Amino acid sequence: MYPTSFQKLIDAFRKLPQVGTKVAERYAYAVLAMEEQEVQHYINAIIIAKSKVKPCTICFHLCEDEKCTICSDQSRNKELVCIVNSSRDVIAMENTQQYTGLYHVLQGEISPAKGIMPEDLTIKELLNRLEQEVKEVIIATNSTVDGETTALYLSKLIGTKNITVSRLAHGIPMGGQLDYADELTLAKALEGRIKY
Amino acid sequence: MYPTSFQKLIDAFRKLPQVGTKVAERYAYAVLAMEEQEVQHYINAIIIAKSKVKPCTICFHLCEDEKCTICSDQSRNKELVCIVNSSRDVIAMENTQQYTGLYHVLQGEISPAKGIMPEDLTIKELLNRLEQEVKEVIIATNSTVDGETTALYLSKLIGTKNITVSRLAHGIPMGGQLDYADELTLAKALEGRIKY
Repeated sequence: MYPTSFQKLIDAFRKLPQVGTKVAERYAYAVLAMEEQEVQHYINAIIIAKSKVKPCTICFHLCEDEKCTICSDQSRNKELVCIVNSSRDVIAMENTQQYTGLYHVLQGEISPAKGIMPEDLTIKELLNRLEQEVKEVIIATNSTVDGETTALYLSKLIGTKNITVSRLAHGIPMGGQLDYADELTLAKALEGRIKY
Repeated sequence: MYPTSFQKLIDAFRKLPQVGTKVAERYAYAVLAMEEQEVQHYINAIIIAKSKVKPCTICFHLCEDEKCTICSDQSRNKELVCIVNSSRDVIAMENTQQYTGLYHVLQGEISPAKGIMPEDLTIKELLNRLEQEVKEVIIATNSTVDGETTALYLSKLIGTKNITVSRLAHGIPMGGQLDYADELTLAKALEGRIKY
């Protein structure tokens, strides 16, 4: 019932993740209401990002050059590598301002259910990196079934080398209430308790 | 911390309504993951919709020509006009498949709080239309404060003419439970009760 071109715009927005008809409609109306210049700006942002952004050849974090800003940063501790699922997690880790090592983005997690096997991730490239100056590895995959599977797989794989391997601590989130924590989290927090 | 062009893409997505940083990031990643062709398709959808879609010169519903498909449809009852806030509401009404009259899209609601006054809407054009063959008007603005304000304003304005004016009924939504309905809705349902 909408004009064809408007309906096509709605359909295009529906391709974005977790966007249903109502939200797609809202976006399509917003685009119609935008200034011509703003729409052009939006389209350019898509075209430029699409042509420029690619994974870093070393750590697979998003970048515009051969090496990402983190891998190029000489002040970073090159002996320490934090293994994460995606670039999003790199940003989350960077936001803590506590980590000074490098990263390795796996570009996913091992998930037999989704048909994602170790060879689909950047594990081969990770192992190549570990042959060099790396002395410590922090596994920071998600604390989901797939994330834990990946962590276990990697810890066994890297454990055979002369490299210290650790995993991010599990426990009560800061500001979290004990009675709202699930049993598993609480058990992990107890197991990993720290001496004052 | 993201590459500049990627950050700009995130910022561009943030301009869409009700899109925060997390969602904008998700969309930006989705665009990166899209096939080149799919991105082109998406961009084209924006450009074409933006250039083709405009309000119908009669009822202000979205259309690609001078007159929208509804206004051009000769089988429609031209004596009956349903007044709605936006094109979205036209689609909602059309989906009932019960309405055979024409529409008039106000392109908003009177809202002193937001600084939207009657002259910002298509009320002048509505009054011009009412001078012609219209015999009945259904006011179908939202049942919000602004929608009710608009309805009241219009009913007084049109009431002076020789035109039947009605408002959509208020009451319990179909499938709704009585004990979950708010007092106002229940009171309206009682007030508007219908004889078997």
